[in-house]
Amino acid sequence: MRVGILGGTGPAGRGLATRLAAAGTGVGVVIGSRDAERAATIVAEVRDRWPDQSLDLVGADNAEAAGSDIVVVATPWDSAVDTLRPLARVLAGKVVVSMANALVREGREMLALVPPRGSVAAAVQWALPDSQVAAAFHHLPARQLADLKTLLAADVLVCSDHAEATAATTGLVDAIDGLRALDAGSLNQAAAIEAFTAVCVTLNLRHRAHSALRFSGI
Amino acid sequence: MRVGILGGTGPAGRGLATRLAAAGTGVGVVIGSRDAERAATIVAEVRDRWPDQSLDLVGADNAEAAGSDIVVVATPWDSAVDTLRPLARVLAGKVVVSMANALVREGREMLALVPPRGSVAAAVQWALPDSQVAAAFHHLPARQLADLKTLLAADVLVCSDHAEATAATTGLVDAIDGLRALDAGSLNQAAAIEAFTAVCVTLNLRHRAHSALRFSGI
Repeated sequence: MRVGILGGTGPAGRGLATRLAAAGTGVGVVIGSRDAERAATIVAEVRDRWPDQSLDLVGADNAEAAGSDIVVVATPWDSAVDTLRPLARVLAGKVVVSMANALVREGREMLALVPPRGSVAAAVQWALPDSQVAAAFHHLPARQLADLKTLLAADVLVCSDHAEATAATTGLVDAIDGLRALDAGSLNQAAAIEAFTAVCVTLNLRHRAHSALRFSGI
Repeated sequence: MRVGILGGTGPAGRGLATRLAAAGTGVGVVIGSRDAERAATIVAEVRDRWPDQSLDLVGADNAEAAGSDIVVVATPWDSAVDTLRPLARVLAGKVVVSMANALVREGREMLALVPPRGSVAAAVQWALPDSQVAAAFHHLPARQLADLKTLLAADVLVCSDHAEATAATTGLVDAIDGLRALDAGSLNQAAAIEAFTAVCVTLNLRHRAHSALRFSGI
């Protein structure tokens, strides 16, 4: 199976790409970028950082990455719709995972914006009406995700209006050691899930920590 | 020290009142209600449930409860402002803790509303301009809170624009075994913290669980 990560050159997308490519579960990863050369540079950087790892990882432009079996949207939140609309046809019928958050930093705090359509994930589903959109991977600290030496121990909230998208996204999460997927309901939940990323980042800024979210009792 | 819980007859307020009254740390609790008789009935119910506990707990109307040293707002979110405005003078200079969430249930999901002024806590601070408002206690399952036999193991996010309110609220949290307070920044964070309660409740509905939120790495 091949996973394409659109806008995968940013910290969050790169971290997810690294973990999936190193998982050794038969998941190949395509880092997508507006600029295929930029994607190739990032892939080379990741390979240089982890010379002992067998990484199933290539770079491409976003259009080529969109040809993958599952596609993750890791662009900045305010370019997600413009990136996706020209790709709606190639993404039709596919599971698309939105991991972007609409955040703005003010001093020692991160604050959540309410993006058009209520959440980034809702905007992604609107741009891709024939795709099965899920939202996931919001609360993971990018730096820890990208560092294969860091043992992860976090829950990943997954929400979607399509059962097959929840199932496929759960499969991606479970491919990564130390992550557990939790079904958090319909895509309506994405607004609160995305906004809570601001709280997670603020906690880390205030406490100089790299915290991970866990739910006990589930 | 005396803590008044306005609207303390509902599940969340009653649970917090029970835990604080049983804590044995010198914290006395006044359950407030629009109807003092209703408050007295709830206090009697709590005493009947825990006959072996020494509970420092009384009932009163909301105005009398507002005379306490610290006041918690546990009314339904849409009656918080109307409850508080007539009490603004007695609450001036005090720490007031907002624990209400603006939620609506649809089938197997809880959804978050955006209340006027962005969050319940912001509305509480608006209604009480001379009080020091904090937001806390949002993500605790009310039933577990009310059941003294349940060992709690949860983090409580505290946010405020007033350092003394964060400190006093942290003291309340720390008085309860099994709870840890985390400073989550300014009162601006309350919008995302309150909305995330919808996700926590939805997880519990979907997984038939009573989950608690924890942050590892802090």
